[in-house]
Amino acid sequence: MTTDNSVQVSVLGLGAMGSALAGALVKAGYATTVWNRSPGKADDLVAQGAEVAATAGDAVRAGRLVIACLLDHASVHEVLDPLADELAGRTLVNVTTTSPAQSRELADWAARAGVAYLDGGIMAVPHMIGQPGASVLYSGSADVFDQHKPLLDLWGTSTYFGEDAGLASLYDLALLAGMYVMFAGFMHGAAMVAPAGVTAGEFAAKAAPWLTAMTGAFEGFAAVIDGGDYTVEGQQSLHFSHLGDLLAASSDQGIGTEVVAMVQRLIQRQIDAGHGEEGFARIFESIKQPG
Amino acid sequence: MTTDNSVQVSVLGLGAMGSALAGALVKAGYATTVWNRSPGKADDLVAQGAEVAATAGDAVRAGRLVIACLLDHASVHEVLDPLADELAGRTLVNVTTTSPAQSRELADWAARAGVAYLDGGIMAVPHMIGQPGASVLYSGSADVFDQHKPLLDLWGTSTYFGEDAGLASLYDLALLAGMYVMFAGFMHGAAMVAPAGVTAGEFAAKAAPWLTAMTGAFEGFAAVIDGGDYTVEGQQSLHFSHLGDLLAASSDQGIGTEVVAMVQRLIQRQIDAGHGEEGFARIFESIKQPG
Repeated sequence: MTTDNSVQVSVLGLGAMGSALAGALVKAGYATTVWNRSPGKADDLVAQGAEVAATAGDAVRAGRLVIACLLDHASVHEVLDPLADELAGRTLVNVTTTSPAQSRELADWAARAGVAYLDGGIMAVPHMIGQPGASVLYSGSADVFDQHKPLLDLWGTSTYFGEDAGLASLYDLALLAGMYVMFAGFMHGAAMVAPAGVTAGEFAAKAAPWLTAMTGAFEGFAAVIDGGDYTVEGQQSLHFSHLGDLLAASSDQGIGTEVVAMVQRLIQRQIDAGHGEEGFARIFESIKQPG
Repeated sequence: MTTDNSVQVSVLGLGAMGSALAGALVKAGYATTVWNRSPGKADDLVAQGAEVAATAGDAVRAGRLVIACLLDHASVHEVLDPLADELAGRTLVNVTTTSPAQSRELADWAARAGVAYLDGGIMAVPHMIGQPGASVLYSGSADVFDQHKPLLDLWGTSTYFGEDAGLASLYDLALLAGMYVMFAGFMHGAAMVAPAGVTAGEFAAKAAPWLTAMTGAFEGFAAVIDGGDYTVEGQQSLHFSHLGDLLAASSDQGIGTEVVAMVQRLIQRQIDAGHGEEGFARIFESIKQPG
């Protein structure tokens, strides 16, 4: 399949991410019109060959394919509700971060307006767009995904999850949850070693390869979770992983314990429910069934 | 430097980790004596060529270098206190998971008993011992580290942090904190997508490369933390990263929110303190200064 870069594209929203997405399109030779609520964000893109639109309406009218990368769900409605008539017959790819319920609501809104709708969740920071490692998740119209896949692939690896427009957002948020929580864990570790004179940079140099190696454990945890039997041989039991040493050492260093105490609570609820001899994957049940 | 495998080694404790450590020594040709409190754990090692000792005292007397890989700090004292006289003049490498304060206490105990002491923190799960990716952190006697580095390198990459015996444990616990918290984040993500029919295995296949890529952000966060100025251009502000979407989507899926609510509290405290326009690395301050 070759890239059909004859399609006119418009990008609404030129934050760091919207600018990166538009930049990739301009670079690939797409006729790209850009718009941002506050002016002055388009200068670099215009220098590269993009057109700038004075209003969102002008941008929508200039593109057969409209990309929305706005602040949030409310911003999407604020910008697009007055333009429903102009959007009719066009295609909307919405990569604004929204909840699954919000994505489904936008898909319904688009269907009523006669707009083909694809929802996207971007698994990358802006500077990764178009680079190896960037991944974008999609759900909604399979036709839109299939037709525009060469364009979408300019941003990163494109994966389609299904017609339910909420699926990509759900996956996106689930992966973002993992990321934010991992970041908090990194910060906790950095705070633990700081009083001993270790810089955050020194700690990062150890933590990045360590946590990368430890992602190797996910597959094993997942097999246990999907199997539904947490009494698996050869795993550390929850009794062993009670994290008492971690909390004590954190307190000794004079830092807060709430990051690791969160994990300890997930463990403790399973121990209290009589599962202390089962494996660590059991904490999945503490999350699945709120305490 | 060549491996001096003429040294007699004894390994106390044959849990999964102790067995892996002993196995690597036997395989490399070291005369290795093993002991475990409960019997029957040595059979595989004996088949490979290890000697089994009936008592911890017999094991200590058989080795110039004694490796302790026991359940916890209390277990180390329970096993070694009655053997202080036999240990005098020998070398003790203690890789039992202990807090920094406990490691320092054991180093003091060893000094009083005339025992050369090196403390180790193993950054690997047992099956990784001797494989690429395994790392062991050491602190305490530099002489012991230098003299036995070829042996220690059989287990994984060996790093020495300094004479303060607590440093390796501190680093170890800080990295373990990052790991446990990351695991909780993975479990939260898996629980979010589960109600949509996504298996934990499918989620793991996406989450492992995603979180691996996101460890690339640590270096940037660390530079901001070490620089002490969180008002860095081009970062997402804390106001943007308030995680409201994440909590709402988690609730919508019927799962608990405490994992992501922990991160949100770290963010909110900085916003409340007037730092909402600063970057995400600012949550380091929420951990450093307990709320």
